[in-house]
Amino acid sequence: MASSNEQATTATTVVTTPSEREIVTERVFDAPRDVIFAAFIDPGLIPEWWGPRSVTTVVDRMEPQAGGQWRFLCRDADGREDGFRGTYREVTPPERVVQTFEWEGMPGHVIVETATFEDLGERTRVVTTSLFHTTEERDGMLASGMETGLAESYERLDELLARLGSA
Amino acid sequence: MASSNEQATTATTVVTTPSEREIVTERVFDAPRDVIFAAFIDPGLIPEWWGPRSVTTVVDRMEPQAGGQWRFLCRDADGREDGFRGTYREVTPPERVVQTFEWEGMPGHVIVETATFEDLGERTRVVTTSLFHTTEERDGMLASGMETGLAESYERLDELLARLGSA
Repeated sequence: MASSNEQATTATTVVTTPSEREIVTERVFDAPRDVIFAAFIDPGLIPEWWGPRSVTTVVDRMEPQAGGQWRFLCRDADGREDGFRGTYREVTPPERVVQTFEWEGMPGHVIVETATFEDLGERTRVVTTSLFHTTEERDGMLASGMETGLAESYERLDELLARLGSA
Repeated sequence: MASSNEQATTATTVVTTPSEREIVTERVFDAPRDVIFAAFIDPGLIPEWWGPRSVTTVVDRMEPQAGGQWRFLCRDADGREDGFRGTYREVTPPERVVQTFEWEGMPGHVIVETATFEDLGERTRVVTTSLFHTTEERDGMLASGMETGLAESYERLDELLARLGSA
């Protein structure tokens, strides 16, 4: 399920499946690497961009260091709440974060997510690799609309970066 | 790293690696299936057999139902403590338990463990399958002495079953 775009350009999130148990995403942002990295690990910035526009994201717990836990809650307009959680395995500013990811609706189905931040000068390339225990779990994530949701989150992150840049 | 025994017989724990990311263990116990199953999910029985003889195991948390959490602490004679934890994905008495397993010394390295309990009349065959995200994590578990530790736990379980049987 590769996107039709072979090259990542600003404002295009490219999603590929290079192996049977992985999803890789690639996106270039118009901001320096330290700014982008901060948006991924600052609990005060997560509610500004994490999740689709239809939900309000609350950071219940966020300890961005090796062994630390995280938990975000996404509430929709009807008050329905989805929980997401995991453990940080590695936080290496401003280059790399490795963490687990678990949707509380499927407890015990654990994904390992590796995010790398490549310095392109005034721009930054973010590549995420999600590793699943099984192909079925990987395909379930793709079927859930993850690609659309991620693109929307990243658009929100663009808007946040524009606000931070003009502040 | 297969054991030299091809057949599981009472008191022999057979450990095999049928794929690059799995460890399978097989053991027959001299007790009916409901008794064995209880030993795996009863918080009062876990300290009697879970872990090597050199440690004292304390159940910090144990909610054996889908979505529930578990956490055991193993203390050695010097007061050193190792934590283990996970989430139950499925608990189907007396046949099957699926749970995640994480050693707190390597946070975020999550194994999926499936235990099946086969009714052999007065005896029960327990097969566990541990699925790792990577071969490296699987091999790390084998190198940790897991095979010896498991055999010792199962010997302790034999002794517990003998005590329960004669009670």
